[in-house]
Amino acid sequence: MTKQQLIDSIYNKNSFLCIGLDSDYNKLPSCILDNDDPIFEFNRRIIDATHKYAVAYKPNIAFYESRGSQGWQSLEKTVDYIRKVDDSIFIIADAKRGDIGNTSKQYAIAFFQNIDFDAVTVAPYMGKDSVTPFLSFDGKWVILLALTSNEGAYDFQFIKAGEKHLFETVIETSKQWGANEDNMMYVVGATKAEMLKDIRKIVPDNFLLVPGVGAQGGSLSEVCKYGINKEVGLLVNSSRGIIFASKGADFDLVAEQKAKEIQLEMKEIIASL
Amino acid sequence: MTKQQLIDSIYNKNSFLCIGLDSDYNKLPSCILDNDDPIFEFNRRIIDATHKYAVAYKPNIAFYESRGSQGWQSLEKTVDYIRKVDDSIFIIADAKRGDIGNTSKQYAIAFFQNIDFDAVTVAPYMGKDSVTPFLSFDGKWVILLALTSNEGAYDFQFIKAGEKHLFETVIETSKQWGANEDNMMYVVGATKAEMLKDIRKIVPDNFLLVPGVGAQGGSLSEVCKYGINKEVGLLVNSSRGIIFASKGADFDLVAEQKAKEIQLEMKEIIASL
Repeated sequence: MTKQQLIDSIYNKNSFLCIGLDSDYNKLPSCILDNDDPIFEFNRRIIDATHKYAVAYKPNIAFYESRGSQGWQSLEKTVDYIRKVDDSIFIIADAKRGDIGNTSKQYAIAFFQNIDFDAVTVAPYMGKDSVTPFLSFDGKWVILLALTSNEGAYDFQFIKAGEKHLFETVIETSKQWGANEDNMMYVVGATKAEMLKDIRKIVPDNFLLVPGVGAQGGSLSEVCKYGINKEVGLLVNSSRGIIFASKGADFDLVAEQKAKEIQLEMKEIIASL
Repeated sequence: MTKQQLIDSIYNKNSFLCIGLDSDYNKLPSCILDNDDPIFEFNRRIIDATHKYAVAYKPNIAFYESRGSQGWQSLEKTVDYIRKVDDSIFIIADAKRGDIGNTSKQYAIAFFQNIDFDAVTVAPYMGKDSVTPFLSFDGKWVILLALTSNEGAYDFQFIKAGEKHLFETVIETSKQWGANEDNMMYVVGATKAEMLKDIRKIVPDNFLLVPGVGAQGGSLSEVCKYGINKEVGLLVNSSRGIIFASKGADFDLVAEQKAKEIQLEMKEIIASL
């Protein structure tokens, strides 16, 4: 998907919501556990109920990998299903991969060729040759971890060498890797919204994927205050706050309601740009 | 596996060789491609031929994940097979995972509960809560990326804040996470062997996993010169240099020969301690 197609989708739906399909088997509503593939069935109903309000879905691969080869099948079926239901959706493999060059290429094949993801999240620690193999797939995106939403972000990401924090160095350095605003986004946690201001100085035009709104405590208005740009430039993710808002048989209807509430807030923000 | 069991295995076999099962489908010998599960069949023959000379195997997960759910099955079968053939083997999932706490837990379940790996490689960028979930499994190990063997290692790992490089800060900080020499190793690339001297000052007693000997250009004697300790304290990995040494029908015999050559070198080194 191109950047322009993503922007069009945002304006068509008046939404920059990404829904995290962190479909933890142990948290699934009991009503669907006797299904042949409960994780896929759960995702299918969430997707049916929410795709009008979202421009992106983001399965976190850990919740599938923890179910072995069966979980991998649920993942493959989920991506196929999203494509069938709504071909404007941007699909992110939240995988946080990264390995030496010839090996990262294999991960890129896993997510871009074998499964039709649009983007994969990548960890920066191993540097250039761990990231660039993902950039050689046309129309596909890297979403590089910059400033994450968790507590552990403070361990290394704020280390300061000279004037710059590590997460700023990561973003600046990545711009020299053939990365541009059409193939690179950055993860910036909503729990550190005020840092978005500094990040926007380095990458004014790139999309940012912002997790941590909702269950993790981040605020949508704070994120937009510091991070939004003239093309919106944000994908704001909510996972548990939508998909596990109800554990009853009405889980999809409640998820729809939660997604719609966020979308309405986003609609107002987009209108005010 | 405990640290003492690993040391016993090293002295029993006179080897600290780890064989990387980077079983790239596109590099498999043509003679096994008509097998139902060529990757598993390849691994099975490599394991049969080499396990006498190795104390550890390290499948890099990318080469399995790039085959989808089928690849995941090959991985599961490979680990089961190693356990059956030689229960003294230390099995490493070279996965370079790392995510926020509740998600890293899912990866730990994937590799420690669903598949019987002894250790998983973990990327440090997201800090403490991305690593500690892997430490709560009894007898299981984290192998934390510290200084990797690739060119991109120079992008961030050598960033200096105060007196310390990032990779040194990573190692020092990780010691405060409930990590100890019985549940934590570090990845230190053989291509940067001289840095092992500084790393040994921070972690004199921890095992180090050293990739990059052979195809990537690292030298076993250099690695041992700077990195070995009184309990050996090293797992030195070779992948392509062993498993793809021949692409003919004799691939397993040639792999055995290559593994044996390295083991004989290691035997001498151990004898001289």
